[in-house]
Amino acid sequence: MIRMEELKGGVTAAQGFLAAGISCGLKKRGHDLALIASEYPATVAGTLTQNKIKAPCVEWTRKILRRGSARAVIANSGNANCCTGKQGVRNTHLMAQWTGSQLGLPAHQVIVASTGVIGIQLPMARIRGGISRAADRLHRLGSSDAAEAIMTTDTRPKEIAVRFKEGKRWIRLGGIAKGSGMIAPHMATMLAFLTTDAKVDASLLRGVLQPVVEETFNAITVDGEMSTNDMVILMANGASGAPALRSRTRAHRNFLEALRLVCRHLAHEIARDGEGVTRLMTVRVQHAPSREAAKTIAQKVANSALVKTMVAGRDPNWGRIAAAVGASGVPLDPQRLVIRLGGTTVFRNGEPVRCRRKILFKEVDRPEVQIGVDLRSGSSGYQILSGDLTEEYIRINAKYTT
Amino acid sequence: MIRMEELKGGVTAAQGFLAAGISCGLKKRGHDLALIASEYPATVAGTLTQNKIKAPCVEWTRKILRRGSARAVIANSGNANCCTGKQGVRNTHLMAQWTGSQLGLPAHQVIVASTGVIGIQLPMARIRGGISRAADRLHRLGSSDAAEAIMTTDTRPKEIAVRFKEGKRWIRLGGIAKGSGMIAPHMATMLAFLTTDAKVDASLLRGVLQPVVEETFNAITVDGEMSTNDMVILMANGASGAPALRSRTRAHRNFLEALRLVCRHLAHEIARDGEGVTRLMTVRVQHAPSREAAKTIAQKVANSALVKTMVAGRDPNWGRIAAAVGASGVPLDPQRLVIRLGGTTVFRNGEPVRCRRKILFKEVDRPEVQIGVDLRSGSSGYQILSGDLTEEYIRINAKYTT
Repeated sequence: MIRMEELKGGVTAAQGFLAAGISCGLKKRGHDLALIASEYPATVAGTLTQNKIKAPCVEWTRKILRRGSARAVIANSGNANCCTGKQGVRNTHLMAQWTGSQLGLPAHQVIVASTGVIGIQLPMARIRGGISRAADRLHRLGSSDAAEAIMTTDTRPKEIAVRFKEGKRWIRLGGIAKGSGMIAPHMATMLAFLTTDAKVDASLLRGVLQPVVEETFNAITVDGEMSTNDMVILMANGASGAPALRSRTRAHRNFLEALRLVCRHLAHEIARDGEGVTRLMTVRVQHAPSREAAKTIAQKVANSALVKTMVAGRDPNWGRIAAAVGASGVPLDPQRLVIRLGGTTVFRNGEPVRCRRKILFKEVDRPEVQIGVDLRSGSSGYQILSGDLTEEYIRINAKYTT
Repeated sequence: MIRMEELKGGVTAAQGFLAAGISCGLKKRGHDLALIASEYPATVAGTLTQNKIKAPCVEWTRKILRRGSARAVIANSGNANCCTGKQGVRNTHLMAQWTGSQLGLPAHQVIVASTGVIGIQLPMARIRGGISRAADRLHRLGSSDAAEAIMTTDTRPKEIAVRFKEGKRWIRLGGIAKGSGMIAPHMATMLAFLTTDAKVDASLLRGVLQPVVEETFNAITVDGEMSTNDMVILMANGASGAPALRSRTRAHRNFLEALRLVCRHLAHEIARDGEGVTRLMTVRVQHAPSREAAKTIAQKVANSALVKTMVAGRDPNWGRIAAAVGASGVPLDPQRLVIRLGGTTVFRNGEPVRCRRKILFKEVDRPEVQIGVDLRSGSSGYQILSGDLTEEYIRINAKYTT
């Protein structure tokens, strides 16, 4: 296996990418407008929210993804520009136009993203000034400012980059993300912007991104919510000088591996920084009759308020796991069901397994609690990462807009 | 419309029913074993949990419901006797046998219910002594003791009874219930025992109970959970002396009305006493293409942690309602969607509706917040009752077994 090296620089680690994050008064404090731009033409792929109510920036970005080419991302936090009617649509278009004219690009080369409160119009004068300042500040070290600018209730910016050798050239891949609250499968209030200097045509780029998003960003959940604005975007500008990526080559596998590493790290960081999360939990469903069944059960357990508070309370009350599995609606044979806490089997053959309480308390006291659900009725599985549910989550969410 | 009078006496308000609640050490404090018995033969109907993992008492009771005749209910709190294997099955049978032998009844006339922690065997010596003491204490005023004995994290017992005139006879109908936490559609950690002195054959009794449960107990939710042990049981012993109820008569309609009143009250009390609930919220979905669609959306909104914390925080951040509606997976046209807080329309024709923030703050400050979702694409609807999500919920559930 090829060696991956971790780099600084996040979304600007890849050659030819610049970024900036500035404050234009959308949030009470901190940066709230991020700009990412490639110095060279770039292909683009992405995945968008599956919420039936979508912000206009999602629709705008969908059109760009269809064309497969974009050179910039303008993203604001503090306001989702969703449920804002025709004016909201116009405002998204204006954001793309203004950014394009600052960078000398047509508007359809500019991806737009927004996150924050729903139903309130964007203050466009501030945005206009902000875009102009962000364009002035674009630079090679702007990634962490951009990472900060997309945060809402996140407690810290999230970025990473890696590189690997392809022949004599380094290929770099990095990104920034925001999450916190409302994180669930299918892009829930989650933004991730990824860049690479590999040369990848748009259709291959789509082909690699989709499955990796499915097993990373879509396999985390904080509270089972899904937002109206989420997106994962990957731009590739070929600035590494390495030859174009071809399907089913070693380079393709290496690129996939790098992408997986970057996405897995960012997804993990999002789960860890979920609102009020103090400890992580992994729910692994095995030997299910289908992947869909495994996923349904894993999601039910990972989103169960009772399981999440059990983890928060360091209480090995595994009956709540059994109740959540049964409540998922997936047909199953309780006699075949096995439930594990970490390495310890607690339920098997319809009976509780005798074990020392001390061991169980140890299992639920780990920084990452492992919950295992084995249906013993098939060969499909699914794993999901989630966090505990604490009073802090309530404190944060009972006071978000006011 | 016939006049319904509220009575004291809960589950013993109906003629010929006795009850007792005693403590046999299953919970740290308070009563934990309830016994309800009819002095005369009685028909019985019920609805049981739809969780795929069921406690043996649910299976036992299912058989009795199929026969349609029962004279007693023995119910314990503090231990759900679920995921307890063959020994758990034997223990359920023993509870029925011991109760039967105390009352001079065959075991198959005794419904068994358990609620509490999963995966731990019942302390049968205590249960045996408890059943004997409970049988000794059966009396006409035992309802509130029984109501207390089925509580887990409930903060207060729940009981009600009503009567109405049928010719020259009074017909009485009453009940007790427990809820709190894990309350969601399909009988989630919820027990309700109802009694009536009307004379109703078992199949008619099933016919009236099912739809009423659907629109009352199944239309409340606290945290989207569903337990392994839930049941609603209705016994009818004919002791009123009124003639047997016949289908599609005035008496039938009156009985249905009384049952609806009793179930609605108990369901409301359960929602109000949900773990950590400080205020209620009603989610009403209108003009949906199908009842199933309306129900899916109502449940998604009513169980959304972000909507529930919005209500807790008295914050009219209705964008969270829009996001939950869109996340339900039900296809819908955002341009037709209308969202209301109380009497105030906040979103219509894809745009936020201008209204004074002061009015919105008033709407979310009511003891029962009304959330309206109008799809304007059909004629089906669904209404669900839920509560807010507060830090108290976490405090309770992070410390349940330990």
